[in-house]
Amino acid sequence: MMDTKEKILAAALALYNEKGISATTRHIAASMAISPGNLHYHFKHTDDIILELYSRLAAEMDQLVLELGNGDVKHFIQASFLVVYKYRFIFLNFVEIAAEIPSIQQHYFQLFKRRGKEFKRIFKILVQQGYFRDDIPDAVWTALVNQVFIVGDFWLSNNELTRQLEGKEAATAFYKQMDAMLYPYRADTLPKP
Amino acid sequence: MMDTKEKILAAALALYNEKGISATTRHIAASMAISPGNLHYHFKHTDDIILELYSRLAAEMDQLVLELGNGDVKHFIQASFLVVYKYRFIFLNFVEIAAEIPSIQQHYFQLFKRRGKEFKRIFKILVQQGYFRDDIPDAVWTALVNQVFIVGDFWLSNNELTRQLEGKEAATAFYKQMDAMLYPYRADTLPKP
Repeated sequence: MMDTKEKILAAALALYNEKGISATTRHIAASMAISPGNLHYHFKHTDDIILELYSRLAAEMDQLVLELGNGDVKHFIQASFLVVYKYRFIFLNFVEIAAEIPSIQQHYFQLFKRRGKEFKRIFKILVQQGYFRDDIPDAVWTALVNQVFIVGDFWLSNNELTRQLEGKEAATAFYKQMDAMLYPYRADTLPKP
Repeated sequence: MMDTKEKILAAALALYNEKGISATTRHIAASMAISPGNLHYHFKHTDDIILELYSRLAAEMDQLVLELGNGDVKHFIQASFLVVYKYRFIFLNFVEIAAEIPSIQQHYFQLFKRRGKEFKRIFKILVQQGYFRDDIPDAVWTALVNQVFIVGDFWLSNNELTRQLEGKEAATAFYKQMDAMLYPYRADTLPKP
């Protein structure tokens, strides 16, 4: 059985995903039929709830990057979308949340730099394994890492502004987007001499 | 001399870019030392101001895409960043603005579809001219168009979450990102047989 703290986080996540981040601690308490005082005992401010949800998102992503060590790009793209979709309110309101909670901006920036190095290392392994082209300059790999971040973080925002796909349809479109993005870097797609 | 309506739009743009979209008509009036009543005579709600600024952004972008017909990709990337930066509050709050003002979401979605076709047509001309590879599948060009949109629209959001570059430094980093993104599609970067 989930303890109250976990139940609050689950209720807040559902509410933020559905209604956006304007939901207050009062709304969250009401949605799970507990008193605002009980919620307040566990989390003083909504910022504390958002920070905890962000930390969990970051931890789940860390785990996926760890597993990417084995080079299964397809699994990584699919699994990472499920994590992004689970915490979608963060991505849909990322700039606003990071401005409101500076520790999230700082954490994200550190993660962006660290993750950038990890991805470049993985890309270079994939070059050595003959999966990626071996003639791409280093600066272009760096840009590809940024691209993967920007499209990964903001694909959902673009989707919200355009087709508004949900669930499985969204997952499929995200996968196709990421997969096609890597296409011209692949060694097996080069024209044969 | 600018008329009052133009002055209001200029003041609102400056304030939104600096402080975000929580600024009210009262703040905008105060920032330009006119009465809220005078502002209200020209614009009933902040939504009307945001909609007008969005329309101008869209018109300036249309003009740039028209000029891209001549195939000067470098000029297009640089000029489009200046437009994005000029109206940066829209890009930094795009999902929220589109949710608040449904006509913006609808307009953007139509523009996204129309512009997608225009870009694909331009990419195909650049293939015929020998600038881009002629072996890229159609679905990958479609994905590249989406990528250009997502990175173009959300590069500033990523920048806000990470390095927070401003002015010329931001423009240079944006150009490098876009330029590197096109690198593996270029015919002249293919390994010689």
